[in-house]
Amino acid sequence: MSMKHFSAVEIKALPKRVRASFVNSLSGFKSVNLVGTVSDDGVTNLSVVSSVVHLGADPALMGFIMRPVTVTRDTYNNIMTNGQYTFNHIAPEFFKKAHQAAARYPELVSEFEAVGLTPEFLEGFKAPFVKESHLKIALNFREKMEIRLNGTYLFIGEIVAVQFPENCMKADGYLDIEQAGSVTCSGLDAYHTTQRLARLSYAKADRPLTELED
Amino acid sequence: MSMKHFSAVEIKALPKRVRASFVNSLSGFKSVNLVGTVSDDGVTNLSVVSSVVHLGADPALMGFIMRPVTVTRDTYNNIMTNGQYTFNHIAPEFFKKAHQAAARYPELVSEFEAVGLTPEFLEGFKAPFVKESHLKIALNFREKMEIRLNGTYLFIGEIVAVQFPENCMKADGYLDIEQAGSVTCSGLDAYHTTQRLARLSYAKADRPLTELED
Repeated sequence: MSMKHFSAVEIKALPKRVRASFVNSLSGFKSVNLVGTVSDDGVTNLSVVSSVVHLGADPALMGFIMRPVTVTRDTYNNIMTNGQYTFNHIAPEFFKKAHQAAARYPELVSEFEAVGLTPEFLEGFKAPFVKESHLKIALNFREKMEIRLNGTYLFIGEIVAVQFPENCMKADGYLDIEQAGSVTCSGLDAYHTTQRLARLSYAKADRPLTELED
Repeated sequence: MSMKHFSAVEIKALPKRVRASFVNSLSGFKSVNLVGTVSDDGVTNLSVVSSVVHLGADPALMGFIMRPVTVTRDTYNNIMTNGQYTFNHIAPEFFKKAHQAAARYPELVSEFEAVGLTPEFLEGFKAPFVKESHLKIALNFREKMEIRLNGTYLFIGEIVAVQFPENCMKADGYLDIEQAGSVTCSGLDAYHTTQRLARLSYAKADRPLTELED
C-alpha cells in the first residue's frame, strides 16, 4: 500500500472544495443526526449534523458543532429562541431524504415537508422529532461556547428524553444502534451501514480482554 | 417494533455503569482514534478517544473531548508539556490492541509496548504515530476550552501532517476511509466495520440528489 504524505502547506494549497472534502474525511466515521427545531411562528426545521459528541453521562450532556453564523441559520435561531431541539438517528430507509434536508430552503419552508419526512411531537416538548427515526433524543439547550479560532460554536444540550426500540437495550445499558438501524457517515456525503466486529470487556492492565456476549 | 421512552429522571435513576453505557450509545457511531503523545522523559503514550470531531478545514482544526483531570492523565500532561499529538485510525487487524490501550498503565509504562503496537516517528515531530495504522494525523495543540457543566475539556489542534493510502483519496478530495480500513465504534466498547450505501451529491433546494460515482 503506497502511502501519501501531506504537510499543512500542501493541505492549504488544495482547492477550497477539495480541501473541505479531504479534511472532513480525516476525523473518521461520524455519527449523523437530523436536528429538529421549531420557530416561534411554528415553522418546523430540520438540519443534518455529523458532529454530535458525547460529553457526559451525569448530567447526560451532548454537544454538536454549529458553523459560523455568517448566513441565517434556522437551527441556531430556533434553539436560541426556545431552547429546545431533538437529535434523530438516520436509517438506510431515509438517508437520502435526510441528506436533502441540508439544502438551503427559505426560512418559511419546513424541511420536513420539503424532503418528505414526518414531524412528531412529544407532550410538553416544543421541538419536533422525526417520526421515521428509530432513535430520538430530546435536548434542552444549556450553553454555547464560541471557538474563536474559526468562529464555530460548540452547542451543549442536556438530554431530557429518549425513545428507542426496547429490544435494542442490553442488560448492561449498551444500546445496540446497529440492530436499531443507525447509519454512520464519512466525509461530507458518504453514508454507511455497519457490521459489528465485537464488544470488548473493560480494559484492565492486569487482565486480558474478552469478547462480550451481547 | 416496540418503542421504549426514557425521561431524564429515568436515565438518572439507572445504575452508574448502566447509565454510562446507555448515554455513550446515544451519540451514534463514533470515530475511534489512538492518540499518540510523548513525555519530556521520552516515554511514549497511547490512549483511545471516540470523540474526535471536525472543526474546520481552513485552518484545518480537529477537536476531541478530554475527561476531567481528577486522576493523572498522561495524554493531558504530555500535550500540555510539548504541544504535539497524533490521531491514528484503527483497523480490524489491531482493534483489540487499541482497546487495551485504554487500560490504566503506570506513567513509566508505554502503552505501545504494553499492548504490542509500534511507535513510528516523523522527522521534526515529537509525538509518536502508530505504525500499524493506515491513516495518521499530526497535530499541534492550539487551545483547550473547559466545559464548566462537567469539567471536561474540548482540546483543539491544528493538523500539521497527514499520512494515508494514496489510492484512497478521490479526485474531489474525499478520502475513502472504508477502503482504507478504518473502523467505527459505538457505546463504550463495540467496534464495527462499514459498508457504504452511497455518496450523495451536494444538496440543493431546486435539484434532486444523485449518487456520486466514486
